Parts: sequence; C-alpha cells; structure tokens
Amino acid sequence: MTADKTTNKAKKTVFKEVRAPPLEGWPQIKGYSFEEEFSFDKFLKSYLTTGFQATQLGIAIEIAKEMQKEQAKIFLAFTSNMGTSGVREQISYLTKHKKVHTMVTSVGAIEEDIIKCLKPFVLGDFRASGKMLREQGINRTGNIFIPNDRYAFFEHFMNSFLQRLYELQKQTKQIIGIKEFVYELGHEMELQKLEKKEESFTYWAYKNKLPFFCPALLDGSVGDMIYFFKKNNPSFKIDTSDYIVQLTDLALDSEKMAILALGGSVPKHAVANAALFRDGADYAIYINTGLEMEGSNAGAPIDEAISWGKIKAEAKSVKVEAEATLVFALFVAGAFRK
Amino acid sequence: MTADKTTNKAKKTVFKEVRAPPLEGWPQIKGYSFEEEFSFDKFLKSYLTTGFQATQLGIAIEIAKEMQKEQAKIFLAFTSNMGTSGVREQISYLTKHKKVHTMVTSVGAIEEDIIKCLKPFVLGDFRASGKMLREQGINRTGNIFIPNDRYAFFEHFMNSFLQRLYELQKQTKQIIGIKEFVYELGHEMELQKLEKKEESFTYWAYKNKLPFFCPALLDGSVGDMIYFFKKNNPSFKIDTSDYIVQLTDLALDSEKMAILALGGSVPKHAVANAALFRDGADYAIYINTGLEMEGSNAGAPIDEAISWGKIKAEAKSVKVEAEATLVFALFVAGAFRK
Amino acid sequence: MTADKTTNKAKKTVFKEVRAPPLEGWPQIKGYSFEEEFSFDKFLKSYLTTGFQATQLGIAIEIAKEMQKEQAKIFLAFTSNMGTSGVREQISYLTKHKKVHTMVTSVGAIEEDIIKCLKPFVLGDFRASGKMLREQGINRTGNIFIPNDRYAFFEHFMNSFLQRLYELQKQTKQIIGIKEFVYELGHEMELQKLEKKEESFTYWAYKNKLPFFCPALLDGSVGDMIYFFKKNNPSFKIDTSDYIVQLTDLALDSEKMAILALGGSVPKHAVANAALFRDGADYAIYINTGLEMEGSNAGAPIDEAISWGKIKAEAKSVKVEAEATLVFALFVAGAFRK
Amino acid sequence: MTADKTTNKAKKTVFKEVRAPPLEGWPQIKGYSFEEEFSFDKFLKSYLTTGFQATQLGIAIEIAKEMQKEQAKIFLAFTSNMGTSGVREQISYLTKHKKVHTMVTSVGAIEEDIIKCLKPFVLGDFRASGKMLREQGINRTGNIFIPNDRYAFFEHFMNSFLQRLYELQKQTKQIIGIKEFVYELGHEMELQKLEKKEESFTYWAYKNKLPFFCPALLDGSVGDMIYFFKKNNPSFKIDTSDYIVQLTDLALDSEKMAILALGGSVPKHAVANAALFRDGADYAIYINTGLEMEGSNAGAPIDEAISWGKIKAEAKSVKVEAEATLVFALFVAGAFRK
Repeated sequence: MTADKTTNKAKKTVFKEVRAPPLEGWPQIKGYSFEEEFSFDKFLKSYLTTGFQATQLGIAIEIAKEMQKEQAKIFLAFTSNMGTSGVREQISYLTKHKKVHTMVTSVGAIEEDIIKCLKPFVLGDFRASGKMLREQGINRTGNIFIPNDRYAFFEHFMNSFLQRLYELQKQTKQIIGIKEFVYELGHEMELQKLEKKEESFTYWAYKNKLPFFCPALLDGSVGDMIYFFKKNNPSFKIDTSDYIVQLTDLALDSEKMAILALGGSVPKHAVANAALFRDGADYAIYINTGLEMEGSNAGAPIDEAISWGKIKAEAKSVKVEAEATLVFALFVAGAFRK
Repeated sequence: MTADKTTNKAKKTVFKEVRAPPLEGWPQIKGYSFEEEFSFDKFLKSYLTTGFQATQLGIAIEIAKEMQKEQAKIFLAFTSNMGTSGVREQISYLTKHKKVHTMVTSVGAIEEDIIKCLKPFVLGDFRASGKMLREQGINRTGNIFIPNDRYAFFEHFMNSFLQRLYELQKQTKQIIGIKEFVYELGHEMELQKLEKKEESFTYWAYKNKLPFFCPALLDGSVGDMIYFFKKNNPSFKIDTSDYIVQLTDLALDSEKMAILALGGSVPKHAVANAALFRDGADYAIYINTGLEMEGSNAGAPIDEAISWGKIKAEAKSVKVEAEATLVFALFVAGAFRK
Repeated sequence: MTADKTTNKAKKTVFKEVRAPPLEGWPQIKGYSFEEEFSFDKFLKSYLTTGFQATQLGIAIEIAKEMQKEQAKIFLAFTSNMGTSGVREQISYLTKHKKVHTMVTSVGAIEEDIIKCLKPFVLGDFRASGKMLREQGINRTGNIFIPNDRYAFFEHFMNSFLQRLYELQKQTKQIIGIKEFVYELGHEMELQKLEKKEESFTYWAYKNKLPFFCPALLDGSVGDMIYFFKKNNPSFKIDTSDYIVQLTDLALDSEKMAILALGGSVPKHAVANAALFRDGADYAIYINTGLEMEGSNAGAPIDEAISWGKIKAEAKSVKVEAEATLVFALFVAGAFRK
Repeated sequence: MTADKTTNKAKKTVFKEVRAPPLEGWPQIKGYSFEEEFSFDKFLKSYLTTGFQATQLGIAIEIAKEMQKEQAKIFLAFTSNMGTSGVREQISYLTKHKKVHTMVTSVGAIEEDIIKCLKPFVLGDFRASGKMLREQGINRTGNIFIPNDRYAFFEHFMNSFLQRLYELQKQTKQIIGIKEFVYELGHEMELQKLEKKEESFTYWAYKNKLPFFCPALLDGSVGDMIYFFKKNNPSFKIDTSDYIVQLTDLALDSEKMAILALGGSVPKHAVANAALFRDGADYAIYINTGLEMEGSNAGAPIDEAISWGKIKAEAKSVKVEAEATLVFALFVAGAFRK
C-alpha cells in the first residue's frame, strides 16, 4: 500500500463513523459543581451522572427507593467489619426504624455491637506494629483499636447469658436455634440493662422482632465464650439446622424480595441462597470490594448470581465496588433518610 | 538562595549518601533466566529472588518446608472456590498423604468435591450472560460452568445420607455435630461406592481420620437439601457447639501449630481464632487477594493477627497476595512434592 | 498439662490484660447517626470517626485544610479517567478558583476536557459488548460512552491549533515545550470561542496561568492528531526536556509543597519525583486503588515515597484507598468549598 | 399457596433442568495431580483446566504460541516495576532472542535495567519503615531495596552519555527523538563497556535493533539527570513527536500485530493506541491487576479496547489478572522456552 492509502485507511478507523442512534436523550456525564450554593440533594443526585462507581452508587440509591415503594422485603447481609466500624450506626438506624426486614451477619458484628454498648472502640492506625500492640493488649482491625479488656466485659455479659440459656435448655429439653440465640442476645441486653443498648442493632432486631441470622454463630468471641462454658457444661448445645428453614421460608414468603449485601462471606451467600428457592430476588444491591476474577462468593457479581437463579434476570440490581465505610452513609442518606 | 546553591542542595537529596551497612551479603534480585537448560528446581528457587509476590511465594515454600521438618500440625483453611477449581486436586493430594492435619472449609467446597465424583465441572467463560445461562440451567462460578443437573445427582446422594443420619439420631438420641457430619459424608461416599471417590479430599479426610470442620455447614447446597429434608422431618437437628471445642482443643494440643489459609471468610478466621487459645500459631501462610484497607477478616494481614494473639510475633509467616489457582500448585510442588 | 491448667492458660491469652495507657482520650469509633436532623457538616465530620477508609478520607480533608492555611503550593496530579468522569467538574472548580497551583495529568484528561466543551459524554454500561459498540462507533471507558464523532470534532479543533503552532515554530525557530503546548491549548479554546470553555480545567489553567504539565503528551488522541499532522509536516517538533526543569524548579521554589494525587501512572510519579529535589513534600494526599503488593508506582504508598525522599518523614500525609469518583466530591466539599 | 405447593415450586427452581447441549466434549476442570511422577510440561498444561486465573494463564500461553506460529509482530509493553523485579531477566531473554519485536516501557524500567549492570538490587521487606530507610539512604520499591549509591553510579554513566548526545546535537543541529535516545543508551553501555551488559534488555534492544520506545522518557532518574545537565546546557533538547509516527507506522506495517502488556500505565496505552490505526491488534495478552470498575486505562479490559477499535473483536485475547512476578516466568516457560 502507498503511504497515502495507509494514512487514509488509518483515518477511517481512527475517525470511525457513529452508526448508533444519536444518544441525544441519554444522561450526560457531569459531576457536582461547587459554583452554585451547596445543596446536599443536588450533591447526592450528581453521583448518578459522575460515572464509574459514583454512578453505581447513584443507581443503588434509586433502586433502594424503589424497593421501599414496592414494599419489597429487604434482606440485609453484612460482614463483621460493618459492626467494627461506624457503619454500625447506620445499621442500627435501619433496624430501629424497620427499614430492613431480615438480617444476616457474621458473629463478629454482633459481639462488637454489644461490646460497644459496654466500652467504645477507638481510632488507631493501619501501620501500628502487631507485636507492640499485642504486648499492650490492644487488638487491631484495620485502623481501629480494640483494647482487650472489652472481651473481659463481654465474657461477663455472656456468662449470665449462657447460664440462662442452659437453664432454659434443661427446663424445656429444647435445643436453641441460631435465630433464637441472637434474639435472646438482644433480650439479654434488656435484662442486663445495658445503658447504651439503643445504639445497638442487635437490640433493635430483638425489640422489633426482625429475624436476625448468624449462620457461623460460633466463629468469633461468642464461640470463645461457649468453648469455656462447654468445658463445664458439655451438654449445652445449639442447633444449626432450623435457621435454614426459617431463612428460606422468609424468602419464599416475601411477595417481593430485595437483597442488600455489604461485604461478602457467609452473609452475602446465605441471603442469595435463600432467594434461589423463589427463583431469584427482585432487587439486589451489592456493596463490596470482592473480585470476580477469583471465582469466590465474595467477588461474585450480580450476573453470576443470575446464572444460579439467585437474582432474577429482570431484577433491578447493581454492584457498587467500594469499601463500605466510604459509601454506606451516603447511600442511607439518599435512600432511607427521613 | 542562588540558583547554584539550590542545585547543590538538590543534588544532596537526589544523591543522598548510603549510611546503611553495605548490604553486600543480601540476596540479589534476579529472576529465572531461560538461557541455561531448564531446571524446574532452579525455576522454583528463582521465585525467592524475583521480588514482589514471587518472593512472597518463595518464602511461603521455605516456611512450609520448615513446618514439616519441625512436625508442626498444619491447619489447612480454604474457601469454597478452591473446591470449584483445580486446587481441589492438590488438596486431595495433601489429605491423602496426611501432609495436613486439620481442615476447615466452607460447605461449597465439600459439596462440589463430592459432586465432582459424580459428574465433572467444565471450563466456561467469565463473560457469559447470566440470563442465558439460567435459561439453559448452567450455573457459573467465575469461568467455571456447573450444569444444574449436578445438583439432582447430589440430592440423590444426600437423601440416602440424611435418612441414615436421621435413623442414627432416632436410635442414639444424639444430635450429630459438624465434624461428625463431615466425617459421615466421607463414609457415605464409601457406602454409595462412588467410583471416583479417591479424587476427593472429603473422602481422604474420612479415610485418614483427619478432623475436618465446616462452621457454616448449611450455607450451600447441603443446606438446600436439609431444607427439603426438614420439611418432612422437622425434628432432625445438627449441633454447632461441639466443633468449637474440638477445633480449639486441637490447636491447644498441638506442640507446634501452623496455619495454611487459602482465601478468607470463615475458614481463615476459624483457624486463626483457634490459635488464639494457645497464644498464637508458630507458622502462618496466607494466600489470598483480600485487602487490608477495608478492615475485613478476609483482608487482615499477618501483622493484624499478631495484635490479636492469633499468630506469634516471632512466628515464621508470610502473606502471598495472589489468586490461589495461580500459585497453589507451584507451592505444593515446592513444599510438598515427594 | 491437665485440662484445667490448659483452660486457665487459654483464658490468660484470650483475656490478655491491657497494659496500654488507658486510651480514654482517644477518638471513639462512631458513624453518622440519622436520628437527628440532617446536617451535612456533621455528616462530613463523621467520616473521621467511622474507621477504615472513611477515616482516611476524613484525615485527607483535615490535611487539605491545613495545606491551605499554611499556604503550601498544591501540586495536583490526576489520571485520564478523572477527565472522563465528573471529577472533571471539581478539578475545573479548583483550577478556576486557583485552589491548586500546579497540575500534572495524562493527555487523555486534557483532550476529553476539551471534547466535552464540544459534545458531551454519556452514561453507558460496564457490560455492553465491545464488538457491538465498535460496530456502532461508540467507545467505552468503564460505564461511560464516548461516541466516536467526538474525535472528528476534536480533529477539527486540533488541526487549526497545530497549524498555528507550526507557523509559530517556523517563525521563531523555537520548538515548543510541553507546558507551553498545554497552555496554548487553553488559548486555542479562547481563539476558537468554544462556548462551554468555562467548564474546562485546561481553559482555567491557561486563564489563571497555572503551570500545567503532561509528560506523556502524545499518548492519546493528541498523539493521533500529531501523527496525521506530521505525515504532511514532518519537521514539526515538540520538546520534552524543558518541562522537567520547569516542574522541578516549581517544587524547589515552593516554601511548602503539597501533593494531591488522584490515580497513579505518570502524573503521580512526576509530582513525587519533583518533590525529591526539595527533600520531600510537606503534605501528601493520595486517592487511588493501587496495590502496594506489586511494587508499582501506582500502588506505592506514602511510606514507600518517604524512603525515596519524595515525601518528608514528618509530612502530614494519607492514602485514601478508593475509586476517586466516590470520594473526590466529598473531599472538595469538606476541604475546598467556599 | 399451600406449604406443599411452595416446596414443589422451590424444588423446581433449585433443581432447574438443564436445557443446554450436553457439554460432554467440554474441557473438564482438573488441577495438577502430584500422584504421578512430576512432569513440568503436564504441570504447565494443567493450568488450562484449573479454572479462574490459572485458566487465563493457560490461554495466554496458547495464544502466545499461536502469535509466534503466525509470525505476528509482538509489541511488548511493560511498566517500571518489571525492570525492578526479576521479570527483567525474562524480558532480556525475549529481547536477546528477538522473540518480541517492538517494546514500550516506563523510563524507570530502563534506568533500573542499566543500574543493575553496575550494582545489584537486593531483597528487602514490604514493612520496613520509610523514615528509617531514608535515614540510611535506602530506597524501597515493594519488597526490593535499592541503596541510593546506585544513583551516583548511574549519574556517572549518564553524564558521559548526555555529553555525547549534546555534542551530537551541536554537530548535526538535529534534536534527538525518544527512540533514538533509548537506542543510544544501549550503545552507551557498549561504549562504557559495562561488564554485565548482556543481562540487560536495553542493551539487547540496541544490539538487535528492536525499536524501543519510552513516551514519558523524563519521568524518572533519567529526567533527574537531564534536569542537572540542562542547568548547565539549557539548549539541549529531546523531541517527543517523532516516536508517535514511528510507533504507529510499526503497527500499520505489521501484517499481524500482537500486544503483550505487563502492567498498565503509558506502555499499555501506547501500544493499544498504535493498534487503533490498523483497526485493532490480532492478538492481545494483558497481565495486570488493574480494575475495570474505575474506568482507568490500567484496568481497562480487552473488551473495552475492542470498543475503541484497538483490539479486533475476533482477536485471540485474554487478560490474566495477576501480579506479573507470579506468572511471567511460567508464561515464558510455556510459550517462549527453547
């Protein structure tokens, strides 16, 4: 080819013509402009047209509004670190005002939610030396410090609790299930008159009788306490089979079902699995940092869940790829604020 | 400052002198060179001096060799996707030859390990449409396709199994625990004479009497089967409290304890939590893609676990930040090959 | 050891005593509570005590306020996708109001900033088929669609521009440098009377005479245009050596220097490298998703830059691990709003 | 609905029938089994059927074999950290044996490649304190330490070099371009008789006359040296406009074009952009950790490049989501070993 011909051919591909319908009506990319007087509502709306994950968050807010309007039952799944961080306050808000209907979590979230009613967690540093912290009795979760005396307080709380449950078992000859165990934890907060109990989502789930599940109930400090308790009381038992029936039936009985999943792990999986029985959820919002490329449940995107029948192909759904502390308060502000 | 002075000052900082001890004896960065005749052993060794995650993998291999030499008890934790992928074959190898001593996993790994003895999983595509796949009855996990008939085979397997367990419960008046449930699954593979059972780590754990735990036992297809089973047999129960005693005691009874954790989620946490009771593991290898920045258990690095007393400050430990299918076969080749 | 002794020992480690100073005065972890009437200022402040990346963002806002109070020269580095997305509007705001002082970017950001003055970008979808889009002449960047006719408009803009520069080269016998090239792009927007030019940061950098660098000036559509232009005018040249002197001298001449880097790539590196000559920046804020584990410039954390002398050890600094569209508007709202 | 009806409906969705064609011939998921005698070739082949990223790597090897068989021109793009790490040795191998045909990189890779011929880099630690390292004059890149005296050696090398180039400029009145600059660096290694020059890809690119580009040539220590040099010799210039013509014409002149991109940043973009002029590359292999979700060039997947016309829709292509040190040696072993 001559040089000119090559150049002309190259121009054709570089300046390839648009054959698409004109896209005139499509939303334009435009971020929030600080030129005008600040308006939080406009600020929030601007996420939708900012592109990338801001748009995903904007879509999540729209979907969450629709979920509520359509009176879908919202199944909130969240991992332990949500309880560790200040996302806890937003979950408590949603629980107190019954803005979510069923909850599934990791036990770390529950125990930390209760501990915070006894003693606070404090701001630390990602780069603090593990060795030095251990010597001082300070546990680190990311940049959050949890002095270890919190667990002595928690042991005290749990010992009365487990004693009460064990008496109940002996009386009724019934083995307690997971949902009932979590419910009784909320009840115990009332019995022990924890002063700050109204900051707790475990308490509000109990108070509002929201079904609250924790499939891996012993995988945390709760398990540690039960370890010590069972050393003296080996016949104390906890049934893990009833919850699957209860959780699944809640999904089956929801006219419309919505998934709101913060983080991955068991909570995200448990809620999606329950949705399978009803041929998929009608709405789904994922907020996590999991990667699809590794084939993990944590990183599995919406479209993968559709292949399994866990989310309907026609569901309104979105994944926000974000660390939840950065976006969950914004999300609640946009979708659930009074 | 004059221009010259500025330049001189700049030179001082740009060419800042080295005050460190000469570093002469330190290992030099050098990747594998393909100039010489290929040697797999040299190839593997070269990882140690390649830098970045290759070095982390090289260190992991060294640590794993030492674990074995020191006869540490190896606690292998792995998530469900390890069973989905070909990492399963390496786990089966380690289990068959008793190269690991205690295992903790997500139930997805166990059920997929069993299903693969009935029917294979096949190579698919990350980008396949979820909607289309659902219509065809094909489930997608990453780029792996699992036609849904696999679950009908699995239901058949599980129904006999659950019937047998239920009879046992009625006879003995004992409620089965999680470790025993998993053990009986291996036993069932023998009873049902699954032809390919020797490819399965669930089978070898049973055969070799390796304690094998699954804290969230019902969070998967096993749970689905139990849902249907319990609809007709509501009094069938599974205890989740004994495993925490068994797992913790195994950690306490190990003279030296080593953690080998693939992926995050409950398995990684359960093993590290057990190690807390003995004031930390002596060795720890993490292979996962979790991010420290989000404060999740999945992303928690070694140093965070040290602050909790789950890994000893002086432990030999390393985190390989990698998707496991890329590195686990190399790791086994380097550390566990005959 | 007897069982009792073992249990006691285990209790000691599980309930390890706190030897740390009481931490009483430390900030407590507390997320925003929606119970009270909504206040955006309290909402923003709550980030600091929410933990994980929310805290990092809160710290970034505090540092950015201090930068300004201390009249540090702010070097803003940003990658191409910031121009693609609505982050552009915030950069324009900062540039228009001279809230940043020197800018470094990838050429994609500049060309897209100009193109948006001609024709908008629109909201698309991450999962749209590349093949189908190509057939229709629509380019995709994440979930943003850029119909290809935008590049025909841009070619028109650039042709007059390059012709003008070339005349200048012939007249003055001077080869234009990178900073001057970018400056003249802003000038050209004025000459061609682009109606929406006041939305553009390239225009405001020109108007406000803010030094604006683009080390890889030809790595984008600008390069494509120059390719075609040089086919007819091979003697047209652009010097890439002067910018390094100008950028470095700006760092050397700043009494206090602050780095504000969005994304990784050349812009982040160029600004940090300039800071090396003055023995490090006094303030540094990184907002990106880069991973330290791979040894890349993109993922290099603050502490790595300290080892190189690019950031002072005592600098106020933070890395927010986040996709910028999620947090940059919040950051500007907190630190730079009128 | 009655309970029975609900259960039946649930069974239908849980055990949804497979309507897909039987998939009998599809490759089965199977990882490497260590039962048999070890064979490296079988080991490598097993990646293809292991799933997740192992499969992606297996596909990459297959594509790279076909590229060579079809005599495609291979454009190798790689970021600076590839030179820092032991990936350098593999790039040198590919360059020495002309297994790649055009190279594009960040300047850090070139300068570190040259420095390593003078003095080695050593293994360090990700967690070393930046402050302490700076005090000792040790630079850290991930877990690789680069004592700062390496830059004094490099300054010495560069000073003669720049002096030579400047004389050339004065003699010929020609301003050197980027490709020629990199070529002359290789030449300089010969002139200065660097003993270990044969370990260097910069040297082999020169020796084998492989076009080698570095669009952001001054964004690194090379720029630092030129900063000091220009303080005394301000009329020394480097043209950045010719390379775009050269690189683009190489793409246009390739009968078949293959992209092999390690990492993101300018190198990946530059090569893909050149491919646009020929309506897309015929083969493409990406190896990086970039995330699609942020709309960055670094994370842009193959399918996004297809929308831009940079990779043909029908190209054989794959993205391996991996840190390159973990996989590149395996990739070379599989695709380029003698």
